[in-house]
Amino acid sequence: MELDPQWVVGFVDGEGCFHVNIQKHPEMSAGFQVVPEFVVVQPERDLQILYALKRFFGFGVVRRCHTDRYALRIRKLKGLEHVCDFFLKHSLKTRKHSDFQKFRKIVLLMLQQKHLDREGVLRIVDIAMQMKTTKDSALQKIKAELESG
Amino acid sequence: MELDPQWVVGFVDGEGCFHVNIQKHPEMSAGFQVVPEFVVVQPERDLQILYALKRFFGFGVVRRCHTDRYALRIRKLKGLEHVCDFFLKHSLKTRKHSDFQKFRKIVLLMLQQKHLDREGVLRIVDIAMQMKTTKDSALQKIKAELESG
Repeated sequence: MELDPQWVVGFVDGEGCFHVNIQKHPEMSAGFQVVPEFVVVQPERDLQILYALKRFFGFGVVRRCHTDRYALRIRKLKGLEHVCDFFLKHSLKTRKHSDFQKFRKIVLLMLQQKHLDREGVLRIVDIAMQMKTTKDSALQKIKAELESG
Repeated sequence: MELDPQWVVGFVDGEGCFHVNIQKHPEMSAGFQVVPEFVVVQPERDLQILYALKRFFGFGVVRRCHTDRYALRIRKLKGLEHVCDFFLKHSLKTRKHSDFQKFRKIVLLMLQQKHLDREGVLRIVDIAMQMKTTKDSALQKIKAELESG
């Protein structure tokens, strides 16, 4: 199945999600791990669409996530850089565009290795707190911990 | 906001719904009323998208449906004919395409006034029963009533 770039933008405006997970991780130099991901979830009957999107972006893993739902997840930085380049060129039309802009800032900081020290993670937490897909209370806690550390 | 046709297909593949409601209506000659509708629901923050789609199709009404959700509904036959022409020319890529094909059959039957007699409604019920967005049990009941009438 060949996908048109504008179709991909429309579909992701509806079904895509830019999400950043930040969690404690004693083995990371900053004490925290930053995991940004681009996710599209579909019911089993539209599994073919997830594989078409995976081919379109050239990155990602398709896995079952709930009973009859499957997700394409792109987590590799190289893949996310490619996803960000695509949506920078082909703007999202919903308010998801605003989340994307923050997500892209975080990916760019990670490409510059900024997530490897506490100061960088703090900057990332501040950006993630402005995204509507992240849990504010958990980030508040991480922020307090980073600031007191 | 200008919408690209392929963006509209992608967005509707994600967020659109083709639905046919069939209910008892003593004033209709067949005793039943057939109400097909094309619906797109969005949270309040993306109300602008619904108005852009309304302009794109040239038909429909935008109204609040739940607490912070709004719906664009196209119910006029003339509008649905236009929507069907659009998605016939620009194919949906998800399994929604299969629902669309049945929806279009029903709209075409209604344009031929077939919904005004019991035989036509029975044909429409049979098609609607194959759609995944319709409630099978309610249609079974209507079918039994039409066949016994």
